[in-house]
Amino acid sequence: MGNTSINLLVKMILTAWQSHNNQLKKIIDTYSDEQLQREIAPGKNTGVYLLGHMVAVHDAMLPLLGLGEKLYPEMEEPFIKMPDKSGQTMPSISELKQRLHIITQHLDEKFAGLTAGEWLSRHLSVSPEDFEKEPHRNKLNVIISRTNHLANHIGQLLLLK
Amino acid sequence: MGNTSINLLVKMILTAWQSHNNQLKKIIDTYSDEQLQREIAPGKNTGVYLLGHMVAVHDAMLPLLGLGEKLYPEMEEPFIKMPDKSGQTMPSISELKQRLHIITQHLDEKFAGLTAGEWLSRHLSVSPEDFEKEPHRNKLNVIISRTNHLANHIGQLLLLK
Repeated sequence: MGNTSINLLVKMILTAWQSHNNQLKKIIDTYSDEQLQREIAPGKNTGVYLLGHMVAVHDAMLPLLGLGEKLYPEMEEPFIKMPDKSGQTMPSISELKQRLHIITQHLDEKFAGLTAGEWLSRHLSVSPEDFEKEPHRNKLNVIISRTNHLANHIGQLLLLK
Repeated sequence: MGNTSINLLVKMILTAWQSHNNQLKKIIDTYSDEQLQREIAPGKNTGVYLLGHMVAVHDAMLPLLGLGEKLYPEMEEPFIKMPDKSGQTMPSISELKQRLHIITQHLDEKFAGLTAGEWLSRHLSVSPEDFEKEPHRNKLNVIISRTNHLANHIGQLLLLK
């Protein structure tokens, strides 16, 4: 036990994140534009909305983890704040696919530079005072939570098959 | 860094597992039998199949983690090996709900007794020789992977709303 175990645990959590992103990319790439425009179930979100939602949620991890500004701040409104079919202007499907690729790769590069100690430091929506009492509100927990969020939407996107 | 950090990381992973189980229970409890009998999307799995699938997958964690025999071994065939609508005999919905409750609580009690060192020991589908080379194939990684699997199906079950 000790630093070797901590590094192993950090790696396990990051590996789960990456493998879900690989799965997302694979699913998105196999679907035609026509498939992505369909609803995952009658009256529910379309594939294209979920694709944009994933880009916007990934993007919001940058400031939350103290890793810089968002690449696509204009995506928060149509893909996080607003539901699907809100009449908002959306980028094209090919543009959304490219943004997913770019933000995923950008996060990977940023993540590769963090030490275990940095992963266990606070994320930026918790104050230093609160973090002292609640040390689980760290950057690594954001990865756990976002991986589960991703898995949740992958389960839905799989229904477009 | 050290044992405090390791215990914190273990706790973060177990908390994510538990919160997803709480969410699953909440969703299942709000649905009527009629809702659970519906397909999550046209031609896809029914809610009741996914409910049974979660019980069977949870149950299989017991031997995999070295925590005892399965409580419901007869559920592997209809809910893991076979797809939905395979014509297999299924327990009633109220029986499935009760089994979900029992297996989830049983796992929680077993998990509470494990130390961080035990969580980092091998799960039982990896040999001691392979584990030496691949220390990420430990019991805690099973929890990470099963939490993501659970999140994936929660995303689908939410469509029955």
